[in-house]
Amino acid sequence: MTAATAAAGSLAESLVGRAVHVKVPATSANLGPGFDTLGLALAQYDDLDVEATDAADHHIEVHGVGEGEVPLDESHLVVRAIAHTFARAGVPLPKLRLVAHNSIPHGRGLGSSGAAIVAGVMAAKGLLAGIVEFTPDELLELATELEGHPDNVAPALFGGLTIAWVTPEGPRHKKLIVHRGVSPLVLVPEHEMSTALARSLQPESVPHEDAVFNVSRSALLIAALIQSPELLLAATEDKLHQHYRAKAMPETDRLIRVLRAAGHPAVVSGAGPSILVLASDPSERADAIRLVEESADTAWQALPLAVDFLGSTVTDASR
Amino acid sequence: MTAATAAAGSLAESLVGRAVHVKVPATSANLGPGFDTLGLALAQYDDLDVEATDAADHHIEVHGVGEGEVPLDESHLVVRAIAHTFARAGVPLPKLRLVAHNSIPHGRGLGSSGAAIVAGVMAAKGLLAGIVEFTPDELLELATELEGHPDNVAPALFGGLTIAWVTPEGPRHKKLIVHRGVSPLVLVPEHEMSTALARSLQPESVPHEDAVFNVSRSALLIAALIQSPELLLAATEDKLHQHYRAKAMPETDRLIRVLRAAGHPAVVSGAGPSILVLASDPSERADAIRLVEESADTAWQALPLAVDFLGSTVTDASR
Repeated sequence: MTAATAAAGSLAESLVGRAVHVKVPATSANLGPGFDTLGLALAQYDDLDVEATDAADHHIEVHGVGEGEVPLDESHLVVRAIAHTFARAGVPLPKLRLVAHNSIPHGRGLGSSGAAIVAGVMAAKGLLAGIVEFTPDELLELATELEGHPDNVAPALFGGLTIAWVTPEGPRHKKLIVHRGVSPLVLVPEHEMSTALARSLQPESVPHEDAVFNVSRSALLIAALIQSPELLLAATEDKLHQHYRAKAMPETDRLIRVLRAAGHPAVVSGAGPSILVLASDPSERADAIRLVEESADTAWQALPLAVDFLGSTVTDASR
Repeated sequence: MTAATAAAGSLAESLVGRAVHVKVPATSANLGPGFDTLGLALAQYDDLDVEATDAADHHIEVHGVGEGEVPLDESHLVVRAIAHTFARAGVPLPKLRLVAHNSIPHGRGLGSSGAAIVAGVMAAKGLLAGIVEFTPDELLELATELEGHPDNVAPALFGGLTIAWVTPEGPRHKKLIVHRGVSPLVLVPEHEMSTALARSLQPESVPHEDAVFNVSRSALLIAALIQSPELLLAATEDKLHQHYRAKAMPETDRLIRVLRAAGHPAVVSGAGPSILVLASDPSERADAIRLVEESADTAWQALPLAVDFLGSTVTDASR
């Protein structure tokens, strides 16, 4: 993925005027038993326009989620991901005009940081098209280097259901197409949750039988999501992470118990505090929404979302 | 599954003369990461003829594997499984004439005890046909009660690749059809291995990261076995059981390392000491056989076996 060094300087100048549009889906990681490995892309998106300019500095605008909150300089996560990708490609970074329209909630366990990183990597891929090419493995590696783990960036990049794992040669993924009956419902609370805090509640070691329990359920979850949605309640059982974190998000824990007791496959979305319900069909999803309205003691935003099967896309937007 | 009690005595008499033929496949459990949950049925069989008689006692013959070694009275495992199934169905056990032709090796990690149990359960199901009916869940429960865990009896009953798990309502399974490229090779050493000894080498607890490692690989193994055999080497990695047991079967451990270093997805079959290689196609399997012949320091019998996709069968053999 490296550009010829001698040509790098002039290449950077030649990029001025290139513009791309990037669209990145929200993601839900873990999915119950699949801690740090399974992820699902959801049809709610951050949209970005990125242009290479010859201005004196970057210009960054954020609309929608994060407006007025996220930094508007080179510490902006999308810009950092673009810079990282250019650096790894050996091309000097031009100044950027970046306009983001975000709809993925922040700090709720829906992959917003992974989406920002993937947006940057994909914007860089688009801006460098024809100069430097990237394999899917390289895109995943670049995004994982910034995110720290591949379970959100894999579905954000590739869409669908992804199994992500790490090898000595870098992160790898397998994409699977989800059974069309599967009808995700995301329940978003008003409060945020720190991923770092959630991760700090993991134990160093776990009972062997709990490990074996999750091994069976994660295998079953693949079968359930691609072939047999009727098995999703059993397939989303987990003994490796959710109960360790439950005390950090009691409202989430309580609502998951209510939903599961009624037969709905509810799990913590990513590090929480959002909840993902993997309903088997749209009518079950409607039942789950009614149950949340009846029983929740705090306000939850219910988002019935399709599975995104394309992943992130980058298109030429040069004028 | 219970017969009407009042009629039970005369039912037992009416069974005399009924005869069934039962065929049960060998199985390989665990498959690397899927400890105590995944199993694969293999096209090597035990065949049994079972007849209900009015003789004074059971008549039991064993030919092939186990001949002259296994008990020939009511402690015979097949007879125990038949008796257990009749007892659960509420029907008195008639005397039995049982002739077994066995080809599944004993004590090698190829599911011979699970096969004997399944043979008994299926023989009972056949003998009781039209009187007592059994659901697939009931068959699995009966076999699991005797075997202690469902990971061998599930594929022996149902064939193909099975995910087995235990719920408060009993054991459950999901059967999957394996990609036609997958070409199993079983390597059987001359020495036996005690399943009880192998199980005693399991630790009480494991590192959380090792549990997560196996969660990712067992999910990946489902995808690899049904869609993407090229991922089988990564998908058969394991950190939860094989290395804990390695010192109990050093030849097995050594040959697995040799095979995996050459790119062949080799794992311990069940509790060992046999090895299962999940080759992606017949030519890779031939390569693996050559490698074993060149590098093994003890004698290994190489069995290229197809995946059995039917499971155990019972047919009417009444004269």
